[in-house]
Amino acid sequence: MYSVEDLKTIVEDALFSGIHEPESYSSYLEEAQKYSISAGGKRLRPCILLSVCEMLGGNVADALPYACALEYIHTYSLIHDDLPAMDNDDFRRGKPSNHKAFGEDIAILAGDGLLTRAAELMSEDMIGSISAGKVYAFNAILSCAYDMVKGQIADIKAVDVPDDEYFNFVHRNKTAALFLAAFQAGAYLAEADDEVLTDMSKAGIIFGMAFQLYDDYLDIDTDKTLSYAQYLGKDKSKEMIAEYLARLSEIIAKYENNETLRALTLPEI
Amino acid sequence: MYSVEDLKTIVEDALFSGIHEPESYSSYLEEAQKYSISAGGKRLRPCILLSVCEMLGGNVADALPYACALEYIHTYSLIHDDLPAMDNDDFRRGKPSNHKAFGEDIAILAGDGLLTRAAELMSEDMIGSISAGKVYAFNAILSCAYDMVKGQIADIKAVDVPDDEYFNFVHRNKTAALFLAAFQAGAYLAEADDEVLTDMSKAGIIFGMAFQLYDDYLDIDTDKTLSYAQYLGKDKSKEMIAEYLARLSEIIAKYENNETLRALTLPEI
Repeated sequence: MYSVEDLKTIVEDALFSGIHEPESYSSYLEEAQKYSISAGGKRLRPCILLSVCEMLGGNVADALPYACALEYIHTYSLIHDDLPAMDNDDFRRGKPSNHKAFGEDIAILAGDGLLTRAAELMSEDMIGSISAGKVYAFNAILSCAYDMVKGQIADIKAVDVPDDEYFNFVHRNKTAALFLAAFQAGAYLAEADDEVLTDMSKAGIIFGMAFQLYDDYLDIDTDKTLSYAQYLGKDKSKEMIAEYLARLSEIIAKYENNETLRALTLPEI
Repeated sequence: MYSVEDLKTIVEDALFSGIHEPESYSSYLEEAQKYSISAGGKRLRPCILLSVCEMLGGNVADALPYACALEYIHTYSLIHDDLPAMDNDDFRRGKPSNHKAFGEDIAILAGDGLLTRAAELMSEDMIGSISAGKVYAFNAILSCAYDMVKGQIADIKAVDVPDDEYFNFVHRNKTAALFLAAFQAGAYLAEADDEVLTDMSKAGIIFGMAFQLYDDYLDIDTDKTLSYAQYLGKDKSKEMIAEYLARLSEIIAKYENNETLRALTLPEI
Protein backbone atom coordinates (compact mmCIF):
# COMPACT_ATOMS: atom_id res chain seq x y z
CA MET A 1 0.00 0.00 0.00
CA TYR A 2 1.28 3.49 -0.83
CA SER A 3 1.98 5.79 2.13
CA VAL A 4 0.78 9.40 2.26
CA GLU A 5 4.29 10.53 1.29
CA ASP A 6 4.39 8.10 -1.67
CA LEU A 7 1.07 9.37 -2.96
CA LYS A 8 2.13 13.00 -2.53
CA THR A 9 5.30 12.38 -4.56
CA ILE A 10 3.36 10.59 -7.29
CA VAL A 11 0.85 13.46 -7.44
CA GLU A 12 3.51 16.21 -7.49
CA ASP A 13 5.27 14.66 -10.47
CA ALA A 14 2.07 14.07 -12.39
CA LEU A 15 0.77 17.59 -11.72
CA PHE A 16 3.77 19.16 -13.44
CA SER A 17 3.98 16.74 -16.33
CA GLY A 18 0.24 17.15 -16.92
CA ILE A 19 0.62 20.84 -17.81
CA HIS A 20 0.99 21.59 -21.53
CA GLU A 21 4.37 22.44 -23.00
CA PRO A 22 4.49 26.23 -23.33
CA GLU A 23 4.50 27.76 -26.81
CA SER A 24 6.45 30.91 -27.56
CA TYR A 25 3.58 33.40 -27.90
CA SER A 26 1.57 32.05 -24.97
CA SER A 27 4.18 30.78 -22.53
CA TYR A 28 2.84 32.97 -19.71
CA LEU A 29 -0.15 30.66 -19.56
CA GLU A 30 1.80 27.59 -18.50
CA GLU A 31 4.27 29.65 -16.44
CA ALA A 32 1.41 31.10 -14.41
CA GLN A 33 -0.20 27.67 -14.04
CA LYS A 34 3.05 26.10 -12.81
CA TYR A 35 3.63 29.01 -10.44
CA SER A 36 0.39 28.28 -8.60
CA ILE A 37 0.80 24.53 -8.77
CA SER A 38 4.27 24.81 -7.26
CA ALA A 39 2.85 26.80 -4.34
CA GLY A 40 2.37 23.35 -2.87
CA GLY A 41 -0.06 22.44 -0.16
CA LYS A 42 -0.87 19.02 1.17
CA ARG A 43 -2.39 17.71 -2.11
CA LEU A 44 -5.13 16.36 0.11
CA ARG A 45 -7.80 16.01 -2.57
CA PRO A 46 -5.77 14.05 -5.14
CA CYS A 47 -4.15 11.92 -2.41
CA ILE A 48 -7.55 11.04 -0.95
CA LEU A 49 -8.79 10.10 -4.43
CA LEU A 50 -5.84 7.78 -5.00
CA SER A 51 -6.00 6.38 -1.49
CA VAL A 52 -9.73 5.56 -1.71
CA CYS A 53 -9.14 3.97 -5.11
CA GLU A 54 -6.31 1.78 -3.78
CA MET A 55 -8.19 0.85 -0.60
CA LEU A 56 -11.08 -0.39 -2.73
CA GLY A 57 -8.83 -2.50 -4.99
CA GLY A 58 -8.36 -0.02 -7.85
CA ASN A 59 -5.16 0.94 -9.64
CA VAL A 60 -3.40 4.12 -8.49
CA ALA A 61 -1.62 4.76 -11.80
CA ASP A 62 -4.89 4.53 -13.74
CA ALA A 63 -6.54 7.00 -11.37
CA LEU A 64 -3.77 9.59 -11.63
CA PRO A 65 -5.28 11.76 -14.43
CA TYR A 66 -8.45 12.15 -12.36
CA ALA A 67 -6.45 13.02 -9.23
CA CYS A 68 -4.54 15.68 -11.18
CA ALA A 69 -7.74 17.03 -12.70
CA LEU A 70 -9.17 17.48 -9.22
CA GLU A 71 -6.07 19.34 -8.01
CA TYR A 72 -6.10 21.57 -11.12
CA ILE A 73 -9.70 22.46 -10.32
CA HIS A 74 -8.77 23.22 -6.72
CA THR A 75 -5.82 25.35 -7.91
CA TYR A 76 -7.86 27.33 -10.46
CA SER A 77 -10.39 28.11 -7.73
CA LEU A 78 -7.64 29.49 -5.48
CA ILE A 79 -6.26 31.69 -8.28
CA HIS A 80 -9.69 33.15 -9.02
CA ASP A 81 -10.53 33.41 -5.28
CA ASP A 82 -7.48 35.60 -4.68
CA LEU A 83 -8.40 38.13 -7.40
CA PRO A 84 -9.06 41.73 -6.31
CA ALA A 85 -12.75 41.43 -7.24
CA MET A 86 -13.02 38.31 -5.06
CA ASP A 87 -11.09 37.92 -1.76
CA ASN A 88 -8.35 40.34 -2.86
CA ASP A 89 -5.50 38.37 -1.34
CA ASP A 90 -1.97 39.46 -2.21
CA PHE A 91 -0.41 36.30 -0.80
CA ARG A 92 -1.12 32.61 -1.01
CA ARG A 93 0.95 30.19 1.07
CA GLY A 94 3.64 32.82 1.65
CA LYS A 95 4.12 33.64 -2.05
CA PRO A 96 2.59 36.56 -3.97
CA SER A 97 -0.75 35.40 -5.31
CA ASN A 98 -0.98 34.62 -9.02
CA HIS A 99 -2.32 38.03 -10.07
CA LYS A 100 0.36 39.77 -8.00
CA ALA A 101 3.04 37.81 -9.84
CA PHE A 102 1.55 37.84 -13.36
CA GLY A 103 -1.19 40.48 -13.46
CA GLU A 104 -4.92 40.07 -13.19
CA ASP A 105 -5.48 39.26 -16.86
CA ILE A 106 -3.00 36.38 -16.88
CA ALA A 107 -4.33 35.12 -13.54
CA ILE A 108 -7.90 34.98 -14.86
CA LEU A 109 -6.73 33.10 -17.95
CA ALA A 110 -4.37 30.80 -16.01
CA GLY A 111 -7.35 29.77 -13.89
CA ASP A 112 -9.53 29.27 -16.97
CA GLY A 113 -6.73 27.23 -18.54
CA LEU A 114 -6.35 24.99 -15.49
CA LEU A 115 -10.06 24.23 -15.35
CA THR A 116 -10.01 23.49 -19.08
CA ARG A 117 -6.88 21.35 -18.72
CA ALA A 118 -8.56 19.37 -15.93
CA ALA A 119 -11.36 18.25 -18.23
CA GLU A 120 -9.03 17.83 -21.20
CA LEU A 121 -6.73 15.54 -19.19
CA MET A 122 -9.65 13.25 -18.35
CA SER A 123 -10.76 13.25 -22.00
CA GLU A 124 -7.25 12.21 -23.09
CA ASP A 125 -7.32 9.36 -20.61
CA MET A 126 -10.70 8.21 -21.88
CA ILE A 127 -9.43 8.24 -25.47
CA GLY A 128 -6.75 5.81 -24.32
CA SER A 129 -9.32 3.44 -22.85
CA ILE A 130 -12.89 3.94 -21.78
CA SER A 131 -14.84 2.40 -18.89
CA ALA A 132 -18.07 3.17 -17.09
CA GLY A 133 -16.06 3.88 -13.92
CA LYS A 134 -14.04 6.58 -15.70
CA VAL A 135 -17.14 8.28 -17.08
CA TYR A 136 -18.74 8.30 -13.62
CA ALA A 137 -15.54 9.60 -12.02
CA PHE A 138 -15.34 12.37 -14.62
CA ASN A 139 -18.98 13.26 -13.99
CA ALA A 140 -18.52 13.27 -10.21
CA ILE A 141 -15.54 15.63 -10.48
CA LEU A 142 -17.34 18.09 -12.78
CA SER A 143 -20.57 17.97 -10.83
CA CYS A 144 -18.73 18.73 -7.60
CA ALA A 145 -16.69 21.45 -9.33
CA TYR A 146 -19.99 23.11 -10.23
CA ASP A 147 -21.20 22.80 -6.63
CA MET A 148 -18.00 24.51 -5.52
CA VAL A 149 -18.87 27.56 -7.62
CA LYS A 150 -22.35 27.60 -6.07
CA GLY A 151 -20.72 27.63 -2.64
CA GLN A 152 -18.46 30.51 -3.63
CA ILE A 153 -21.44 32.54 -4.83
CA ALA A 154 -23.36 31.84 -1.60
CA ASP A 155 -20.28 32.81 0.40
CA ILE A 156 -19.93 36.14 -1.43
CA LYS A 157 -23.63 36.96 -1.36
CA ALA A 158 -24.03 36.30 2.35
CA VAL A 159 -27.54 36.42 3.76
CA ASP A 160 -28.44 39.16 6.26
CA VAL A 161 -28.99 36.77 9.12
CA PRO A 162 -26.89 33.65 8.52
CA ASP A 163 -28.14 30.47 10.17
CA ASP A 164 -27.15 26.79 10.27
CA GLU A 165 -28.85 26.12 6.96
CA TYR A 166 -26.92 28.90 5.23
CA PHE A 167 -23.53 27.91 6.68
CA ASN A 168 -24.16 24.27 5.88
CA PHE A 169 -24.95 25.19 2.28
CA VAL A 170 -21.73 27.20 1.95
CA HIS A 171 -19.51 24.58 3.59
CA ARG A 172 -21.18 21.68 1.75
CA ASN A 173 -20.60 23.34 -1.60
CA LYS A 174 -17.57 25.61 -1.27
CA THR A 175 -15.42 23.06 0.54
CA ALA A 176 -16.96 19.63 0.96
CA ALA A 177 -17.83 19.28 -2.76
CA LEU A 178 -14.24 18.73 -3.89
CA PHE A 179 -13.66 16.20 -1.08
CA LEU A 180 -16.86 14.45 -2.11
CA ALA A 181 -15.43 14.34 -5.64
CA ALA A 182 -12.20 12.79 -4.30
CA PHE A 183 -14.01 10.02 -2.43
CA GLN A 184 -16.55 9.37 -5.19
CA ALA A 185 -14.10 9.41 -8.09
CA GLY A 186 -11.72 7.11 -6.20
CA ALA A 187 -14.57 4.66 -5.62
CA TYR A 188 -15.86 4.83 -9.20
CA LEU A 189 -12.36 4.23 -10.58
CA ALA A 190 -12.12 1.12 -8.37
CA GLU A 191 -15.45 -0.04 -9.86
CA ALA A 192 -17.02 -0.03 -6.39
CA ASP A 193 -20.62 -1.18 -5.90
CA ASP A 194 -23.52 1.04 -4.85
CA GLU A 195 -23.21 0.32 -1.12
CA VAL A 196 -19.53 1.28 -1.10
CA LEU A 197 -20.32 4.36 -3.18
CA THR A 198 -22.87 5.45 -0.60
CA ASP A 199 -20.29 5.03 2.17
CA MET A 200 -17.65 6.96 0.27
CA SER A 201 -20.08 9.77 -0.60
CA LYS A 202 -20.99 10.14 3.08
CA ALA A 203 -17.31 10.07 4.03
CA GLY A 204 -16.49 12.80 1.50
CA ILE A 205 -19.16 15.18 2.74
CA ILE A 206 -18.42 14.51 6.41
CA PHE A 207 -14.69 15.01 5.97
CA GLY A 208 -15.24 18.20 3.97
CA MET A 209 -17.59 19.67 6.58
CA ALA A 210 -15.11 18.83 9.36
CA PHE A 211 -12.24 20.26 7.33
CA GLN A 212 -13.91 23.64 6.75
CA LEU A 213 -15.22 23.96 10.30
CA TYR A 214 -11.74 23.17 11.67
CA ASP A 215 -10.28 25.76 9.29
CA ASP A 216 -12.76 28.35 10.61
CA TYR A 217 -12.07 27.20 14.17
CA LEU A 218 -8.34 27.94 13.81
CA ASP A 219 -9.20 31.54 12.80
CA ILE A 220 -12.04 31.94 15.28
CA ASP A 221 -10.39 34.88 17.07
CA THR A 222 -9.28 36.75 13.95
CA ASP A 223 -11.93 36.25 11.23
CA LYS A 224 -13.52 39.57 10.32
CA THR A 225 -16.67 38.27 8.65
CA LEU A 226 -18.79 35.90 10.69
CA SER A 227 -17.62 32.32 10.19
CA TYR A 228 -19.59 29.20 11.05
CA ALA A 229 -17.18 28.53 13.93
CA GLN A 230 -17.78 32.03 15.31
CA TYR A 231 -21.51 31.56 14.87
CA LEU A 232 -21.39 28.25 16.77
CA GLY A 233 -18.81 29.29 19.37
CA LYS A 234 -15.63 27.43 20.36
CA ASP A 235 -17.17 24.61 22.37
CA LYS A 236 -19.93 23.77 19.94
CA SER A 237 -17.47 23.93 17.01
CA LYS A 238 -15.07 21.49 18.71
CA GLU A 239 -17.97 19.20 19.54
CA MET A 240 -19.23 19.20 15.95
CA ILE A 241 -15.78 18.54 14.51
CA ALA A 242 -15.33 15.60 16.90
CA GLU A 243 -18.72 14.26 15.94
CA TYR A 244 -17.93 14.49 12.21
CA LEU A 245 -14.62 12.70 12.68
CA ALA A 246 -16.21 9.95 14.78
CA ARG A 247 -18.72 9.32 12.01
CA LEU A 248 -15.95 9.35 9.40
CA SER A 249 -13.86 6.94 11.45
CA GLU A 250 -16.80 4.56 11.75
CA ILE A 251 -17.27 4.46 7.97
CA ILE A 252 -13.59 4.02 7.17
CA ALA A 253 -13.22 1.29 9.84
CA LYS A 254 -15.51 -0.94 7.75
CA TYR A 255 -12.79 -1.24 5.09
CA GLU A 256 -9.55 -3.19 5.07
CA ASN A 257 -6.28 -1.55 4.02
CA ASN A 258 -7.52 1.80 5.27
CA GLU A 259 -4.27 2.97 6.89
CA THR A 260 -3.31 5.58 4.30
CA LEU A 261 -6.83 6.97 4.06
CA ARG A 262 -6.97 7.18 7.87
CA ALA A 263 -3.62 9.00 7.92
CA LEU A 264 -4.93 11.49 5.34
CA THR A 265 -8.31 12.19 6.88
CA LEU A 266 -8.16 11.42 10.58
CA PRO A 267 -5.21 13.27 12.08
CA GLU A 268 -5.19 13.91 15.81
CA ILE A 269 -6.51 17.42 16.40
CA MET B 1 -32.41 18.54 -43.44
CA TYR B 2 -32.66 21.20 -40.78
CA SER B 3 -32.38 24.81 -41.93
CA VAL B 4 -30.16 27.37 -40.20
CA GLU B 5 -33.24 28.77 -38.48
CA ASP B 6 -34.33 25.29 -37.31
CA LEU B 7 -30.91 24.62 -35.83
CA LYS B 8 -30.81 28.01 -34.12
CA THR B 9 -34.18 27.36 -32.49
CA ILE B 10 -33.11 23.90 -31.34
CA VAL B 11 -29.90 25.33 -29.89
CA GLU B 12 -31.61 28.25 -28.12
CA ASP B 13 -34.02 25.94 -26.31
CA ALA B 14 -31.30 23.49 -25.30
CA LEU B 15 -28.98 26.23 -24.08
CA PHE B 16 -31.51 27.43 -21.53
CA SER B 17 -32.70 24.02 -20.41
CA GLY B 18 -29.07 22.92 -20.01
CA ILE B 19 -28.42 25.47 -17.25
CA HIS B 20 -28.88 24.14 -13.70
CA GLU B 21 -31.99 25.02 -11.70
CA PRO B 22 -31.01 27.87 -9.37
CA GLU B 23 -30.88 27.20 -5.63
CA SER B 24 -31.87 29.85 -3.13
CA TYR B 25 -28.43 30.78 -1.76
CA SER B 26 -26.65 30.68 -5.11
CA SER B 27 -29.30 31.77 -7.61
CA TYR B 28 -27.12 34.63 -8.90
CA LEU B 29 -24.94 32.01 -10.55
CA GLU B 30 -27.60 30.75 -12.91
CA GLU B 31 -29.16 34.22 -13.30
CA ALA B 32 -25.84 35.61 -14.48
CA GLN B 33 -25.29 32.64 -16.79
CA LYS B 34 -28.73 33.02 -18.36
CA TYR B 35 -28.20 36.77 -18.71
CA SER B 36 -25.18 36.24 -20.94
CA ILE B 37 -26.69 33.31 -22.79
CA SER B 38 -29.78 35.37 -23.59
CA ALA B 39 -27.57 38.10 -25.10
CA GLY B 40 -28.00 36.04 -28.24
CA GLY B 41 -25.76 36.08 -31.21
CA LYS B 42 -25.86 33.86 -34.24
CA ARG B 43 -25.06 30.63 -32.34
CA LEU B 44 -22.67 29.95 -35.18
CA ARG B 45 -20.46 27.42 -33.36
CA PRO B 46 -23.20 25.09 -32.09
CA CYS B 47 -25.14 25.37 -35.37
CA ILE B 48 -22.03 24.46 -37.38
CA LEU B 49 -21.43 21.48 -35.09
CA LEU B 50 -24.98 20.22 -35.60
CA SER B 51 -24.94 20.97 -39.31
CA VAL B 52 -21.66 19.10 -39.90
CA CYS B 53 -22.98 16.18 -37.87
CA GLU B 54 -26.19 16.02 -39.91
CA MET B 55 -24.40 16.45 -43.24
CA LEU B 56 -22.22 13.46 -42.40
CA GLY B 57 -25.17 11.26 -41.44
CA GLY B 58 -25.15 11.79 -37.67
CA ASN B 59 -28.08 12.52 -35.37
CA VAL B 60 -28.69 16.17 -34.45
CA ALA B 61 -30.50 15.41 -31.18
CA ASP B 62 -27.63 13.21 -29.99
CA ALA B 63 -25.12 15.94 -30.77
CA LEU B 64 -27.01 18.66 -28.90
CA PRO B 65 -25.19 18.41 -25.52
CA TYR B 66 -21.87 18.89 -27.33
CA ALA B 67 -23.23 21.85 -29.29
CA CYS B 68 -24.44 23.46 -26.04
CA ALA B 69 -21.12 22.77 -24.32
CA LEU B 70 -19.32 24.57 -27.13
CA GLU B 71 -21.60 27.60 -26.85
CA TYR B 72 -21.21 27.67 -23.04
CA ILE B 73 -17.46 27.75 -23.55
CA HIS B 74 -17.79 30.57 -26.07
CA THR B 75 -20.07 32.47 -23.66
CA TYR B 76 -17.77 32.03 -20.64
CA SER B 77 -14.90 33.39 -22.72
CA LEU B 78 -16.90 36.51 -23.61
CA ILE B 79 -17.82 37.13 -19.95
CA HIS B 80 -14.18 36.88 -18.85
CA ASP B 81 -12.97 38.86 -21.91
CA ASP B 82 -15.17 41.80 -20.95
CA LEU B 83 -13.80 42.04 -17.39
CA PRO B 84 -12.01 45.27 -16.42
CA ALA B 85 -8.67 43.45 -16.14
CA MET B 86 -9.15 42.10 -19.67
CA ASP B 87 -10.81 44.15 -22.46
CA ASN B 88 -12.79 46.26 -19.98
CA ASP B 89 -15.95 46.37 -22.07
CA ASP B 90 -19.06 47.81 -20.44
CA PHE B 91 -21.34 46.55 -23.19
CA ARG B 92 -21.79 43.31 -25.09
CA ARG B 93 -24.28 43.16 -27.93
CA GLY B 94 -25.99 46.34 -26.76
CA LYS B 95 -26.57 45.11 -23.20
CA PRO B 96 -24.41 45.91 -20.14
CA SER B 97 -21.70 43.28 -19.93
CA ASN B 98 -22.04 40.59 -17.28
CA HIS B 99 -19.85 42.33 -14.68
CA LYS B 100 -21.70 45.61 -15.24
CA ALA B 101 -24.99 43.85 -14.52
CA PHE B 102 -23.89 41.52 -11.69
CA GLY B 103 -20.52 42.76 -10.43
CA GLU B 104 -17.05 41.46 -11.19
CA ASP B 105 -17.08 38.68 -8.61
CA ILE B 106 -20.28 37.12 -9.93
CA ALA B 107 -19.10 37.56 -13.53
CA ILE B 108 -15.87 35.67 -12.83
CA LEU B 109 -17.82 32.86 -11.15
CA ALA B 110 -20.56 32.81 -13.79
CA GLY B 111 -17.84 32.26 -16.40
CA ASP B 112 -16.20 29.55 -14.30
CA GLY B 113 -19.59 27.93 -13.83
CA LEU B 114 -20.35 27.94 -17.57
CA LEU B 115 -17.04 26.31 -18.44
CA THR B 116 -17.63 23.73 -15.71
CA ARG B 117 -21.20 23.15 -16.88
CA ALA B 118 -19.96 22.61 -20.44
CA ALA B 119 -17.82 19.65 -19.38
CA GLU B 120 -20.44 18.41 -16.91
CA LEU B 121 -23.10 18.37 -19.62
CA MET B 122 -20.94 16.16 -21.83
CA SER B 123 -20.21 13.86 -18.88
CA GLU B 124 -23.95 13.50 -18.21
CA ASP B 125 -24.51 12.57 -21.84
CA MET B 126 -21.74 9.96 -21.70
CA ILE B 127 -23.25 8.43 -18.57
CA GLY B 128 -26.43 7.96 -20.61
CA SER B 129 -24.56 6.11 -23.34
CA ILE B 130 -20.93 6.02 -24.29
CA SER B 131 -19.26 5.81 -27.71
CA ALA B 132 -15.79 6.43 -29.09
CA GLY B 133 -17.20 9.30 -31.16
CA LYS B 134 -18.49 11.06 -28.04
CA VAL B 135 -15.16 10.74 -26.24
CA TYR B 136 -13.32 12.15 -29.27
CA ALA B 137 -15.84 14.99 -29.62
CA PHE B 138 -15.46 15.82 -25.92
CA ASN B 139 -11.67 15.79 -26.28
CA ALA B 140 -11.76 17.97 -29.41
CA ILE B 141 -13.92 20.56 -27.64
CA LEU B 142 -11.69 20.73 -24.54
CA SER B 143 -8.47 20.73 -26.53
CA CYS B 144 -9.72 23.63 -28.66
CA ALA B 145 -11.00 25.43 -25.55
CA TYR B 146 -7.46 25.27 -24.20
CA ASP B 147 -6.08 26.62 -27.48
CA MET B 148 -8.52 29.51 -27.21
CA VAL B 149 -6.97 30.52 -23.87
CA LYS B 150 -3.51 30.37 -25.46
CA GLY B 151 -4.75 32.73 -28.16
CA GLN B 152 -6.14 35.13 -25.56
CA ILE B 153 -2.80 35.19 -23.74
CA ALA B 154 -0.91 35.82 -26.99
CA ASP B 155 -3.37 38.59 -27.86
CA ILE B 156 -2.89 40.31 -24.50
CA LYS B 157 0.88 39.91 -24.46
CA ALA B 158 1.39 41.29 -27.95
CA VAL B 159 4.90 41.10 -29.38
CA ASP B 160 6.78 44.35 -30.07
CA VAL B 161 6.84 43.85 -33.82
CA PRO B 162 3.88 41.68 -34.80
CA ASP B 163 4.27 39.71 -38.03
CA ASP B 164 2.26 37.16 -40.01
CA GLU B 165 3.38 34.33 -37.74
CA TYR B 166 2.20 36.15 -34.62
CA PHE B 167 -1.16 37.17 -36.08
CA ASN B 168 -1.73 33.67 -37.42
CA PHE B 169 -1.02 32.21 -33.98
CA VAL B 170 -3.51 34.58 -32.33
CA HIS B 171 -6.25 34.05 -34.93
CA ARG B 172 -5.69 30.28 -35.11
CA ASN B 173 -6.06 29.94 -31.35
CA LYS B 174 -8.23 32.81 -30.13
CA THR B 175 -10.86 32.42 -32.83
CA ALA B 176 -10.36 29.47 -35.17
CA ALA B 177 -9.97 26.94 -32.33
CA LEU B 178 -13.66 26.95 -31.36
CA PHE B 179 -14.70 26.66 -35.02
CA LEU B 180 -12.27 23.77 -35.40
CA ALA B 181 -13.99 22.20 -32.38
CA ALA B 182 -17.39 22.66 -34.04
CA PHE B 183 -16.32 20.95 -37.28
CA GLN B 184 -14.34 18.19 -35.55
CA ALA B 185 -16.93 17.38 -32.88
CA GLY B 186 -19.71 17.30 -35.48
CA ALA B 187 -17.66 14.84 -37.56
CA TYR B 188 -16.71 12.65 -34.58
CA LEU B 189 -20.32 12.48 -33.44
CA ALA B 190 -21.28 11.31 -36.95
CA GLU B 191 -18.57 8.60 -36.64
CA ALA B 192 -16.79 10.02 -39.68
CA ASP B 193 -13.66 8.30 -41.03
CA ASP B 194 -10.14 9.78 -40.98
CA GLU B 195 -10.33 11.34 -44.43
CA VAL B 196 -13.54 13.18 -43.61
CA LEU B 197 -12.07 14.23 -40.26
CA THR B 198 -9.09 15.74 -42.06
CA ASP B 199 -11.42 17.67 -44.38
CA MET B 200 -13.53 18.95 -41.52
CA SER B 201 -10.46 19.96 -39.49
CA LYS B 202 -9.16 21.97 -42.44
CA ALA B 203 -12.59 23.52 -42.93
CA GLY B 204 -12.78 24.54 -39.26
CA ILE B 205 -9.43 26.30 -39.27
CA ILE B 206 -10.01 27.97 -42.63
CA PHE B 207 -13.45 29.24 -41.66
CA GLY B 208 -12.15 30.50 -38.31
CA MET B 209 -9.26 32.37 -39.92
CA ALA B 210 -11.61 33.95 -42.46
CA PHE B 211 -14.11 34.82 -39.73
CA GLN B 212 -11.58 36.69 -37.58
CA LEU B 213 -9.94 38.46 -40.50
CA TYR B 214 -13.34 39.61 -41.75
CA ASP B 215 -14.18 40.80 -38.23
CA ASP B 216 -10.95 42.82 -38.17
CA TYR B 217 -11.63 44.05 -41.71
CA LEU B 218 -14.99 45.52 -40.66
CA ASP B 219 -13.21 47.56 -37.98
CA ILE B 220 -10.16 48.39 -40.06
CA ASP B 221 -10.69 52.16 -39.85
CA THR B 222 -11.48 52.29 -36.12
CA ASP B 223 -9.34 49.64 -34.34
CA LYS B 224 -6.92 51.28 -31.93
CA THR B 225 -4.46 48.42 -31.52
CA LEU B 226 -2.96 47.02 -34.70
CA SER B 227 -5.19 44.27 -36.10
CA TYR B 228 -4.16 41.71 -38.69
CA ALA B 229 -6.39 43.44 -41.24
CA GLN B 230 -4.67 46.78 -40.56
CA TYR B 231 -1.29 45.07 -40.78
CA LEU B 232 -2.21 43.52 -44.15
CA GLY B 233 -4.13 46.50 -45.53
CA LYS B 234 -7.61 46.53 -47.08
CA ASP B 235 -6.81 44.95 -50.43
CA LYS B 236 -4.64 42.16 -49.09
CA SER B 237 -7.20 41.41 -46.34
CA LYS B 238 -10.04 41.12 -48.84
CA GLU B 239 -7.92 38.92 -51.05
CA MET B 240 -7.02 36.59 -48.17
CA ILE B 241 -10.62 36.32 -46.99
CA ALA B 242 -11.72 35.45 -50.54
CA GLU B 243 -8.97 32.86 -50.78
CA TYR B 244 -9.98 31.26 -47.46
CA LEU B 245 -13.62 31.09 -48.51
CA ALA B 246 -12.72 29.59 -51.90
CA ARG B 247 -10.78 26.82 -50.16
CA LEU B 248 -13.62 26.27 -47.71
CA SER B 249 -16.15 26.10 -50.54
CA GLU B 250 -14.03 23.51 -52.33
CA ILE B 251 -13.95 21.24 -49.27
CA ILE B 252 -17.65 21.56 -48.50
CA ALA B 253 -18.56 20.97 -52.17
CA LYS B 254 -17.24 17.41 -51.85
CA TYR B 255 -20.14 16.54 -49.55
CA GLU B 256 -23.80 15.95 -50.28
CA ASN B 257 -26.52 17.63 -48.22
CA ASN B 258 -24.24 20.59 -47.55
CA GLU B 259 -26.84 23.34 -48.02
CA THR B 260 -27.21 24.26 -44.34
CA LEU B 261 -23.47 24.19 -43.70
CA ARG B 262 -22.94 26.39 -46.77
CA ALA B 263 -25.58 28.82 -45.56
CA LEU B 264 -23.83 29.01 -42.17
CA THR B 265 -20.28 29.39 -43.37
CA LEU B 266 -20.31 30.84 -46.85
CA PRO B 267 -22.45 33.98 -46.87
CA GLU B 268 -21.94 36.52 -49.63
CA ILE B 269 -19.60 39.15 -48.30
